[in-house]
Amino acid sequence: MYSVAGLLKIINTEIEQRSGDLKKLTPANLYKPVDYSLEMGGKRLRPVLLLLSYNMFSDSVQNAIPAALAIEIFHNFTLLHDDIMDKAEVRRNRPPVHKKFSENSAILSGDVMAFLSYQYLLECKSDNLHEVLELFTKTAIEVCEGQQLDMEFENRLNVEESEYLEMIRLKTAVLLACGLKAGALLANADIKIANQLYEYGINLGIAFQLQDDLLDSFGSQESLGKKIGGDILANKKTFLSIKALENATGEVKSELISWLKNADYSPAEKITAVLDIFNKLNIRELTEQKIESYFQKCTTVFQQINMGEKQKLQLQEISKGMLNRVH
Amino acid sequence: MYSVAGLLKIINTEIEQRSGDLKKLTPANLYKPVDYSLEMGGKRLRPVLLLLSYNMFSDSVQNAIPAALAIEIFHNFTLLHDDIMDKAEVRRNRPPVHKKFSENSAILSGDVMAFLSYQYLLECKSDNLHEVLELFTKTAIEVCEGQQLDMEFENRLNVEESEYLEMIRLKTAVLLACGLKAGALLANADIKIANQLYEYGINLGIAFQLQDDLLDSFGSQESLGKKIGGDILANKKTFLSIKALENATGEVKSELISWLKNADYSPAEKITAVLDIFNKLNIRELTEQKIESYFQKCTTVFQQINMGEKQKLQLQEISKGMLNRVH
Repeated sequence: MYSVAGLLKIINTEIEQRSGDLKKLTPANLYKPVDYSLEMGGKRLRPVLLLLSYNMFSDSVQNAIPAALAIEIFHNFTLLHDDIMDKAEVRRNRPPVHKKFSENSAILSGDVMAFLSYQYLLECKSDNLHEVLELFTKTAIEVCEGQQLDMEFENRLNVEESEYLEMIRLKTAVLLACGLKAGALLANADIKIANQLYEYGINLGIAFQLQDDLLDSFGSQESLGKKIGGDILANKKTFLSIKALENATGEVKSELISWLKNADYSPAEKITAVLDIFNKLNIRELTEQKIESYFQKCTTVFQQINMGEKQKLQLQEISKGMLNRVH
Repeated sequence: MYSVAGLLKIINTEIEQRSGDLKKLTPANLYKPVDYSLEMGGKRLRPVLLLLSYNMFSDSVQNAIPAALAIEIFHNFTLLHDDIMDKAEVRRNRPPVHKKFSENSAILSGDVMAFLSYQYLLECKSDNLHEVLELFTKTAIEVCEGQQLDMEFENRLNVEESEYLEMIRLKTAVLLACGLKAGALLANADIKIANQLYEYGINLGIAFQLQDDLLDSFGSQESLGKKIGGDILANKKTFLSIKALENATGEVKSELISWLKNADYSPAEKITAVLDIFNKLNIRELTEQKIESYFQKCTTVFQQINMGEKQKLQLQEISKGMLNRVH
């Protein structure tokens, strides 16, 4: 079996190759933002999970590379469009496509990336390709649903924890789960195991997003590649702000609400004040406990999967890495 | 065989049904614009061509309905995104999605429509489904390329006729051709015939777009569902403006260029002045001749297709209708 680092290397080599292909395509201005977006790097988490899952059942990892690329380019497509909708200023320490090029570029080059993901996926030779295409398409639809909910939550003060968890399941977790299941399906794994890996991916994905929420408030800008407190400034509903609103009472609650409604503030002042409230309410600890509870769910599913311990090892390693990360 | 009207009825009934399904989906605000866009109507040309092509080889038209819906919802997805990029004010006599809802809605609901088109397509049972998916994906990518070229041409004065024809091949013709070829493939037609139908569709599509250009300047607002002269006001490169720039000399050329560069004008005055120049240069006749030349290419391909005259009849009928239309 390949190590996680080995799989990452395979993916980066392949992306470099495809990036060379993209550079030759016309109209150049359509494909430049695609290339810019792919070259930005990122953790390549989704394609690594897909290959890792495939590799648990088959050694011929080469066969699954087009699917791994498909899921990575799809993920990058969502970033292009989400960044327009969220008016993002920075992505991975660089201007996002709609800033570097234009909004129209981000829309249209995003669109072509969505279709390129299908083009790559269709290169895969597998008896289960139809199922993988159905899974991928269902997932893509769910990711759109998640983004819609995320946008709607920004204009609501009363988002429940359960609504929030469903939103991040759709926006983040299903794509990680899709990667794990697709890898298994392409390698002709038992459907029961493929479904267990999906469930594992859902719990891992939710934990991962909660960690992302936590880092946005309690991480460091340098390792994160974007400013700390972005979610706070955007009044984004995150696990942290939802828990804070739920647990705050009296003066602390009024203060929090006034910060959330206040449009006329200095950014640094708002971040400090809201972090101060988070600290008073032990929000960091509550979030860490929630992350731990989802990681426990992963462990439970993990133990039920009927598969050799050796094959499970890499999955365990990458999952732990995902939840102990600083960026 | 079904008549064109019969096929249109099948499609509209099916869209009504799916529209009912969409109304039940959540988040409602993601699916409302999808429904709004599908309910707007339109000519349903692409799904009719797909079913008509299928019906030339098989009577069980029901099998191809999901593919017909897929191509229609894909077409509507492109309208949502193009209308943002082109800052369109009106679509089919109503506000486009980005005006009726918001730009973010048009981006995200457009995205989900792209994926719904794959979801529908994957419902089709056919031995050739993989080929159809490849064709559909290649076409979708080409449509993005066409839109990119169209946008780029707006900022250029020196667009050649050949460049323009390539742009409309990508932006408009390939999707009509895809409908015809996909219908044939799904019905297990001979691949040679499927490819001839594709070629037919390309020529028909180019003629159709040239007709569209013509109507934008020489049609009537009432039957067109949008204002006359929109292309002129937007300084859009069309066959008409490209031919006018190519053929104009001396004072007429300076006058035309000054209109194209002038940002400070009354819309009605600009339209009248540019139409006047078009008339001086016989642009209407030149465009009609070009349309006729592409229709002749259709006829040539048509005669080569090894298929009964009876089966060809409907295709001939709809093609003539497409080129004699007023809207």
